[in-house]
Amino acid sequence: MSERTVFFLSDQTGVTAETLGHSLLTQFDGQDFRQVTLPFIDSEDKAKEAVGKINLAAKKGGVKPIVFSTLVQDDFRAIIREAEGLHLDIFDAFLEPLEDELKQKSTHEPGRAHGMSDIESYMKRIEATNFALANDDGGITRNYEVADVILIGVSRSGKTPTCLYLALQYGVYAANFPLTDEEFDSGTLPDFLVKQREKLVGLTITPARLQQIRKERRALGQYASAQQVRYELREAEKIFRKYDVPHINTTEFSIEEIASRILNTTGVERRVRP
Amino acid sequence: MSERTVFFLSDQTGVTAETLGHSLLTQFDGQDFRQVTLPFIDSEDKAKEAVGKINLAAKKGGVKPIVFSTLVQDDFRAIIREAEGLHLDIFDAFLEPLEDELKQKSTHEPGRAHGMSDIESYMKRIEATNFALANDDGGITRNYEVADVILIGVSRSGKTPTCLYLALQYGVYAANFPLTDEEFDSGTLPDFLVKQREKLVGLTITPARLQQIRKERRALGQYASAQQVRYELREAEKIFRKYDVPHINTTEFSIEEIASRILNTTGVERRVRP
Repeated sequence: MSERTVFFLSDQTGVTAETLGHSLLTQFDGQDFRQVTLPFIDSEDKAKEAVGKINLAAKKGGVKPIVFSTLVQDDFRAIIREAEGLHLDIFDAFLEPLEDELKQKSTHEPGRAHGMSDIESYMKRIEATNFALANDDGGITRNYEVADVILIGVSRSGKTPTCLYLALQYGVYAANFPLTDEEFDSGTLPDFLVKQREKLVGLTITPARLQQIRKERRALGQYASAQQVRYELREAEKIFRKYDVPHINTTEFSIEEIASRILNTTGVERRVRP
Repeated sequence: MSERTVFFLSDQTGVTAETLGHSLLTQFDGQDFRQVTLPFIDSEDKAKEAVGKINLAAKKGGVKPIVFSTLVQDDFRAIIREAEGLHLDIFDAFLEPLEDELKQKSTHEPGRAHGMSDIESYMKRIEATNFALANDDGGITRNYEVADVILIGVSRSGKTPTCLYLALQYGVYAANFPLTDEEFDSGTLPDFLVKQREKLVGLTITPARLQQIRKERRALGQYASAQQVRYELREAEKIFRKYDVPHINTTEFSIEEIASRILNTTGVERRVRP
């Protein structure tokens, strides 16, 4: 049986090649790919090494590997081109129309992070991450005045990873507060949240999925019981309605999608761009 | 003066379009772009709304906007095409050669996260994030047996955001332990780290940059003094050498680059793919 390998080649981290490749490959159902990332190809030797790996995969797999490439330098690109594969290269495809439109030649140099704007962006992301950590799970600081957004929802509805992702990817200041018996019994939110009402976003999820996630953590006891998760989700949704809090059902979404939908719902501006 | 707008269009989050666009635009020095992301274009109305925004930007800016698009559905793509812009579309560029090579038509359906593999991947990322949080900054659990990698370095060398990024992006179990006076005075690592020696990666940074970062946090006192940061970095590097710990200078790198270099240096396999 033939095995198809997909390579992601880069003179940097390979994240762009992977993101691009993943978007395209999900358009083909039922295909099984072996995925290999070869980052930091920044010398002739490394380019030749990559060619060796691609040719080996072609030989062993019996089919052409697919090569997503974001190498910038022409000499390394020329070496890679020699490999036995289907080459899909964003610079081949898009650089020429961009040069024509911008009336400027591109630098063909690896776009390494540098200069003050990148340092600033690094700092902003770090500060946002520290904010998310300090204001996680009800936090101790409850520094909600400077928050861009405050997520509320039951335990394991996705609040923590979403806040961290918002911080790392977008530099957004995201706090989160767990809804527990205290809120369910009174049917109300604490005053310090009501004051920040316009920053609140609710996360909800289907009972079945929440039960599945909670079981991973603690299989036994009430925490993951069908009755308990249904009760908590029902009460949380009552609170969302009472305070008119926009909410997102996270069941079908990846962390990226939840984060992106939050920005889209609230209109919160990202503080950094990738 | 003309202002050039760059649009990132998607029926999903827009992350792919942004990543792609950013890689290409960094090839053009000295250009200043206004960047607008329009995610979740999943209806005719939203596609038409996007066209309106692009045309308005063309008119106001006096130059063609650049449109990076990852819309999958043909009817919405056709609407977007009508907008006044330079259209750069990964599906236009790459879907046909992929279909030819794979001998399969693509689905042309938005690749929403679904199915068990995505739930599994979500869970893995969440579990890895929880691990990173529990094992941050020396942690309380010190659950180092199950760690994939343990970062060591002085305060503010980038350990925490890197661990969180490794967890969220790659599902990798990353712990971190801060090097402080205890280690500097003895010149040794604690036993529980020595036991996990093959998992250790050191982070280092230039004194000037570390000072700058620390000043953001606490401007006064010894913590951010030139003398203190030089002392700590020198002692940390002695320890890296003593235990033969591979180390990465993070000064010039983004969080993505540090994370990617760690995987590359250690050979640790990611647990999830984007």
